[in-house]
Amino acid sequence: MKLVHTVAELREEVAIAKSQGLSIGLVPTMGALHEGHASLIKAANQENDFVVVSVFVNPTQFGPNEDLDAYPRTLEADCKLAEKMGANVVFAPSPAEMYPSVDATWVEVTGDVTKVLCGRTRPIHFRGVTTVVTKLFNLAQPDRAYFGQKDAQQVEVLKRMVKDLFFNLQLRIMPIVREADGLAKSSRNTYLSAEEHTAALILSRSLQAAKEQYATGERDAAKICAAVTASIKSEPMANIDYVEIYGLPELTPVTNPMVGSNLLAVAVKFGTTRLIDNVVLEDK
Amino acid sequence: MKLVHTVAELREEVAIAKSQGLSIGLVPTMGALHEGHASLIKAANQENDFVVVSVFVNPTQFGPNEDLDAYPRTLEADCKLAEKMGANVVFAPSPAEMYPSVDATWVEVTGDVTKVLCGRTRPIHFRGVTTVVTKLFNLAQPDRAYFGQKDAQQVEVLKRMVKDLFFNLQLRIMPIVREADGLAKSSRNTYLSAEEHTAALILSRSLQAAKEQYATGERDAAKICAAVTASIKSEPMANIDYVEIYGLPELTPVTNPMVGSNLLAVAVKFGTTRLIDNVVLEDK
Repeated sequence: MKLVHTVAELREEVAIAKSQGLSIGLVPTMGALHEGHASLIKAANQENDFVVVSVFVNPTQFGPNEDLDAYPRTLEADCKLAEKMGANVVFAPSPAEMYPSVDATWVEVTGDVTKVLCGRTRPIHFRGVTTVVTKLFNLAQPDRAYFGQKDAQQVEVLKRMVKDLFFNLQLRIMPIVREADGLAKSSRNTYLSAEEHTAALILSRSLQAAKEQYATGERDAAKICAAVTASIKSEPMANIDYVEIYGLPELTPVTNPMVGSNLLAVAVKFGTTRLIDNVVLEDK
Repeated sequence: MKLVHTVAELREEVAIAKSQGLSIGLVPTMGALHEGHASLIKAANQENDFVVVSVFVNPTQFGPNEDLDAYPRTLEADCKLAEKMGANVVFAPSPAEMYPSVDATWVEVTGDVTKVLCGRTRPIHFRGVTTVVTKLFNLAQPDRAYFGQKDAQQVEVLKRMVKDLFFNLQLRIMPIVREADGLAKSSRNTYLSAEEHTAALILSRSLQAAKEQYATGERDAAKICAAVTASIKSEPMANIDYVEIYGLPELTPVTNPMVGSNLLAVAVKFGTTRLIDNVVLEDK
């Protein structure tokens, strides 16, 4: 496996792979790789001849009061895991390498899909995501790109971007990977104290209960949200940002009664750490 | 030559060309093809195995009071010219085909390059251009894309976009093609009455004079602009939008004295028709 830091080096690796007719899988990450990322790289390796993993803590998707500086950076361990899971190249550029101009060129998905949920409190977040993912798509020219369902809103935003801008690739969305205790894997879990970690288990428990509520026939989104909210509030350390349900795809307003596929998404702070989790509610 | 109207058809043509290892040249146009466009298609044909010409009057680059509805549409003649100049495919999609979602995904270059000159009076214009060109790049996957120096600001904006988003292609910029009388070729020239056409010749004459002024050693941008402004104002039908000089690339503020490469650009209305023209001032 090769570790490269510059756009020129990545382009060379990709050009060689392309010239050999290899299919390319891209796994964009912000590093601090965990088993969730590992599952993406593994899938990319199974479905493509050549796998590029990017490790880039993208500054433009962090708000002014967010955790850009604190975000864990573990490149050496990331490379080991990426290699183990079958990556051919790890691309770990500097911010200057990814943003070569003083002023930016932005790629921005508009509409409800970027305004609701995390878009409300993180107004520039998805613009940063779609901009950097566009850059990575153009550099790696993947046949398939891998993202986790954990970032459910990001998934819907990227689907819209790929559809609108006609990117010639397939988005592959992989299921949430959880700790044995149910906590959704996240690079930000390392911020949690042992006590906060235990408290945060309320998220997966509440979402699981909502899934069961839905399975027994509940189709009133307000009732499901109320139950999840009450359950999370039973944990004193939890500080709710949102508990909401939106229609899939594209996070349209949920209907009453709920029909089709809907996303139940939560964002909750434990101490200074903001965690997100979600479950898709749909008929089997 | 094939005329296709859908994204799916274009993708198929491109996929076939790619599978045969052909290099692809893309000529994005809004139709109403004239000799300027012909020179682009000809160059694309000389430098690539497979040439895609897009003909799409892109609604998102027109302001609310601009000439979207009036813009000339001459698809049949465009196809004939494109074929004659060596195009393999003409792609003439509908707006709904190019903008498949209710809300848009925008690609926007920020900074002075989009704010000065035409950007001042046409605030959404370049966002529309960069968005549609991104879509066309992703669909046609060209090795080279062809644009005319006539739209000098567009050229600088697209250079920035390609640089910032890492499009894997070469921008090929072709010289302005002029009528025998000096008027820069433009699809909008068809709007001009015979009298307005004659009046509009003041543009190329004034720019040519500025070039000579520069050649004789004038390096004061304000003086050159003043001379061009006075010359254009000598034509009673001319209504000046701007006469300005900016540094190249990226339309930075011009220095005094002028150094390097600078763009002298004008936008002037004759009746209701707004024409642009330009000349690059640089040492030989």
